[in-house]
Amino acid sequence: MQGLHLTADLGGVDASLAPMRDAGALAALCHAAVAQSGLTGVAELFHRFAPDDPQSGVTGVVLLAESHLAVHTWPELGGVTLDVYVCNYGTDNSAKAEALLDALLKAFAPRDAEVQRLSRAAAATPAV
Amino acid sequence: MQGLHLTADLGGVDASLAPMRDAGALAALCHAAVAQSGLTGVAELFHRFAPDDPQSGVTGVVLLAESHLAVHTWPELGGVTLDVYVCNYGTDNSAKAEALLDALLKAFAPRDAEVQRLSRAAAATPAV
Repeated sequence: MQGLHLTADLGGVDASLAPMRDAGALAALCHAAVAQSGLTGVAELFHRFAPDDPQSGVTGVVLLAESHLAVHTWPELGGVTLDVYVCNYGTDNSAKAEALLDALLKAFAPRDAEVQRLSRAAAATPAV
Repeated sequence: MQGLHLTADLGGVDASLAPMRDAGALAALCHAAVAQSGLTGVAELFHRFAPDDPQSGVTGVVLLAESHLAVHTWPELGGVTLDVYVCNYGTDNSAKAEALLDALLKAFAPRDAEVQRLSRAAAATPAV
């Protein structure tokens, strides 16, 4: 069970973009990006930290059959963090993970982005 | 906005442990570990992939005021993956993140664990 975990930390994102503050808009963006990538969403949770505060950020998680997508927004900082984690148990989902990350990077159009690629262990092998 | 992301990929976990297959047991474990660490849960999602299949694994996500915890179990492989991500915006939550990971490692008592520590960017700084 090897996995690929992509992280992206974005700066200089336009705080007026709807997914920065609106949980429904972030959900719609994530749905479209997951579907386009060929990954499979199975459950989701979108949460706005302080619904009465127009500066409040949003967090969203989509559980994938292949692992998960997580997005946190900080409109007051123009910041967004992205996590795309896929296990490659049975099939290599790396290209789909990269496609999902690319779609989200295009949507948030940051001034700066630091992308890291973490290869996750094959620790969980069946006992022999 | 700097952050610390801890990942742990576990092997050789006893598949008969309740949190490996039971979403309620995994939720209870995560609640206790989050509270003990001093981090703050704000929303959560626990999902069992195939409720009718006794081999089915569970995924859980706890959204934290400080970012998120994610757990995936694979009972058929004796495997668990853990993610603890905290932003350190305003205060350094690194020690709490390590405490949360430690509590979960103790609970799953794996034969093998590969832990990685990823320092996440300060990309999202306020525009000057």
